[in-house]
Parts: sequence; C-alpha cells; structure tokens
Amino acid sequence: MNQTPNSQLPIGIFDSGVGGLTVYQALHERLPNERFVYLGDTARVPYGTKSLATVERYAVENALFLQGHGIKLLVVACNTASALALPAVERAVAVPVVGVIEPGARAAVEAIGADGRIGVIATEATIGSHAYRAAIERLAPGATIIEQACPLFVSLAEEGWAETDVARTVAAEYLAPLRAARVEAVVLGCTHYPILRRVIAETLGAQVALIDSGRAAATAVAALLQTRELMRHTDANETRGESRRLCDDLDHFYVTDAAARFARVAERFLGCAPRVLEAVEVWGHDRLAVS
Amino acid sequence: MNQTPNSQLPIGIFDSGVGGLTVYQALHERLPNERFVYLGDTARVPYGTKSLATVERYAVENALFLQGHGIKLLVVACNTASALALPAVERAVAVPVVGVIEPGARAAVEAIGADGRIGVIATEATIGSHAYRAAIERLAPGATIIEQACPLFVSLAEEGWAETDVARTVAAEYLAPLRAARVEAVVLGCTHYPILRRVIAETLGAQVALIDSGRAAATAVAALLQTRELMRHTDANETRGESRRLCDDLDHFYVTDAAARFARVAERFLGCAPRVLEAVEVWGHDRLAVS
Repeated sequence: MNQTPNSQLPIGIFDSGVGGLTVYQALHERLPNERFVYLGDTARVPYGTKSLATVERYAVENALFLQGHGIKLLVVACNTASALALPAVERAVAVPVVGVIEPGARAAVEAIGADGRIGVIATEATIGSHAYRAAIERLAPGATIIEQACPLFVSLAEEGWAETDVARTVAAEYLAPLRAARVEAVVLGCTHYPILRRVIAETLGAQVALIDSGRAAATAVAALLQTRELMRHTDANETRGESRRLCDDLDHFYVTDAAARFARVAERFLGCAPRVLEAVEVWGHDRLAVS
Repeated sequence: MNQTPNSQLPIGIFDSGVGGLTVYQALHERLPNERFVYLGDTARVPYGTKSLATVERYAVENALFLQGHGIKLLVVACNTASALALPAVERAVAVPVVGVIEPGARAAVEAIGADGRIGVIATEATIGSHAYRAAIERLAPGATIIEQACPLFVSLAEEGWAETDVARTVAAEYLAPLRAARVEAVVLGCTHYPILRRVIAETLGAQVALIDSGRAAATAVAALLQTRELMRHTDANETRGESRRLCDDLDHFYVTDAAARFARVAERFLGCAPRVLEAVEVWGHDRLAVS
C-alpha cells in the first residue's frame, strides 16, 4: 500500500478552550483508528468576544505549537478561529488544515436543498464575520440565511445549566427570530452548542434540522485523509476502535491554563474524565510544565 | 504645602476587562480632582475561571505596563487579581497598591459588626482563594461567612440581561444558600455585580446590606492619598469636579483587545460613551496601535 510517511502521526485539534472536545468526539467516532492531540487555549478563552487581530494571533500560535508536536493534519475546532483566522493558519503551517465553517455550511445546504431557509447561531465574533453566510451563499446562492449571536449559551453549557428553565428562557429569546423566519435548518456554529442541543431542538421544533459543524468537519477530515492516503493503519496486535474509550484516545490533552475548572468542564463535555491536562505555553512554543 | 513631587500623576487602575469601570466610577465620585488611567486586559478576559499562576502573570504584566505609563498609585480593580495576585503585584511595582478585597471585607464588618453573618459572592477563582474569608476573619474572628461563586452573573451583566427574568431566576438559585443562612450583609466581590445590584437586592431582601468592594476601595485610596500627601491639587483655572463628566476624566482608556464589543460594554457600565479605546500590548510593554 502506497502510504505517505506521516500517516501514523496524530491529528492535531485546537480550540479556544475545552468546547472543541465536542469536535474531538465527532472525529473519534468517525475515525476510530486515528490518534489525536488536543490543545485548548484555556489561558485566553473565550475567543468569541474578541477581535480579528487577536483571534488570528492566538490561532497561529496554537497551530505552530501543534505542528511542532508532529501532526499530519490540523483541525481548527473553534468556530470563531475558523471564521476569522483560517487563512492565517493555512499560511502558518505546512500540514492540511480543516476548519468547521465550510463543512457546516455544506451539511446545512445538503440537508435542506439549495433554496432553503437556514439559521446560523454562533458567537458574536463568528456572526460578525458572516463567514457562515458567505460559505452558504457560495454553495447555494438562492438560500435565505438568518444569523443570530447567542453569547450566553457558552456559559450555560460550561456551568452545567444546559437543561434548566434558564436555558429554555434564554433559548426562546435568542431563537425567536429564527422561528419567525421559519428556518428549515440551523447550524450549531459554536462548539458549545451541541451541549444545549436538546433545549435548542425543543425551542425550534422537531421539523428543524440541527447541523453540528463538528460532525460535518469529521466527515471532511475523513474524506481528506482518504484522498491524501493519510489514513492511519493499525496492526493486528493493537486493540482499537470500540474497545478503547474516548478519553483514552487523546494522546495528549494540552491546555494553556490548567485550572481545575477546565478538567471539570472537559468531563461535562466528554462524558468521561480526560487523562492528565498538560499545561503548556504556546506563545513561546516551549513546554512549560506538566500539571 | 509639602507635596511629594508625583502627586499630579494619575491613578492607575487595571482590571481583567471593562468590569473595573464600576471601580473607576466609585473612585471618580470619591476623588473628583484626580486623573485616571485605566487598563482593561480584554484580550485575556475573564480571569475568574483561570488558575493562580496565570492570573499572577497577567496581573504583573498589567501593573508593569501602568507603572511604565507614570502613575502615583495602582488600584487592582479586579477582585480575582486582588484575591490571587496582590502580593505578586506589590513585589513588581514601586508605587502603592490598593486591591478591593481588604476594603470590601472591612466595609462588611463595619456595616454589621464583628459577630455578624456575611455572604460573599464572586467568581469561581476568588471564592476558591478564600481571600474574602481570610480578610473578614482577620478583622472579625467571630463572623459567620458563607461563600458562593456566581459565574453566570458576569455574562448576564455584560450582555445586558441584568433586569430580566433570567437574571432573577439565576439570582434565586445562586443566592438561596445565603438566604437560608440569613446573612446580614453580602459583599459584591466581582466588579460586574453592581450592575446586577437591583436583582440581587430584590432576591436577598431590603434588610441585607450590599457591600460594593469598589466603593470601599475608593475610600481606602482617598485615605492613602491623604496620609501620603499625594492628593492632586487643581489650580483655579481648571474646571473639574461636577462640571466634568465621568467619561472625559479617563485620560487614557487602554485595552489589550479593541473589539467593538468592549466599547459597547463599557458604555453599559459607565452610562456614557468612553473616549477612544487605545489598543496596547502589555506582555512586551510596547504600545501596539491606537484604534
């Protein structure tokens, strides 16, 4: 088999924090033979309220850190970084880069057809960039697009308030314009939103398709690995796939700040306790300390 | 009059973001003849979810930046930075440093006496440090202290949801243990919480004294300036005091990220539109750009 030399390397994933673990989960499910390295920029989280210049700088620093670790492909799990900084990241690293915007847009258009009504919910920075709108319009010029920033969803997901009356009230308020526009699909354009999936679905109604950009990105990554012959091959002695657990398959779980809180939030997102969080500095590309 | 040479210099204030403007407001009201320089570390906000090591590093970088600007006194407006990093900041700079924890604790004890029941609400990092508990216990060993982290309050204040049913529901949940303990005073141990003052007061009842640590810090700053003969003296031609507005008296409003969002949130906190936000890098102590 004509494998390129680096197919055994892990896939690198970075996010502004631990929200990108929902994307890791989707990748892990779709690609059970792959190995993964995750970087959460917890020292500077969140990105969704920050400016283009700052998000670009942080994203490039994260990408260079992971490239230095040795990866065959980079997934920008953070929607805000994908929306604002994908070109800067692609210029900075040599490996293929996959963001979540283009796959999410494509999945939405495929779900309801080219002239449908699509809602996009995301952070303030992602919505302000209109990156989803642009990506959907490229694929489906006839589509109607309604964009809505939902900043409080992030804290509700992180603090474990996803299934509360507070979450339902906030969802009703944010999603009212999407209901009024009778959207047929809604892109969950922030890694935190799958945690609120049930409340969002109840608020919008069962007829609205919810598009998880992380899952869509996993499909795009699988296709890219196939095309470039970068799929990892396991030998017979390696027990992988369903026999290994989500939390064990993260070879490294790097964070830029190792507050105990992030381990707790990570567990809330993964449904299992991740192995040790390794605290690193990404701005100098030096390993700082292992917590 | 025997003035020390630097009494005409401004007072420096730093915060993790724009929440510290509530402390600036209190200082401005208490010290109408003073001039102020404010630094909001908006590129790395919030601090309240991060670790001791990270908060210390950020706080020292902010303090050195303001010292480099030329200030006569430094106010650490951020409760989290005051709770975790005050000793590190005091070691790093030559000017007197005033935090918000000790003044807030003192004001609470003075309000209800030495053997009262005091609630403290703050970020997760401030509560985890038990800095308010330690400060109150030093002043009033007989006091009963109930601590409660209220992380969602920050986003509610920043997103303009302070006077909503959502805020009331969240407040009812967070403050239930304080009500059950029949506290007589509650320290608002985060710069954002004065924005939610009305909802907090309604939830706790009118008999509970709400202690604003920012106001308490302003009193401490006034006393310190008096003792050290550092009060600024205005000449007859200068029209200061009530004739000048809150937003005009900020000589410099530095931010580490100048996303338009922070100008909007600042206006929500001040009640007036601040003058131009100057974007700076504090980690290299170099001025980056003026937005």
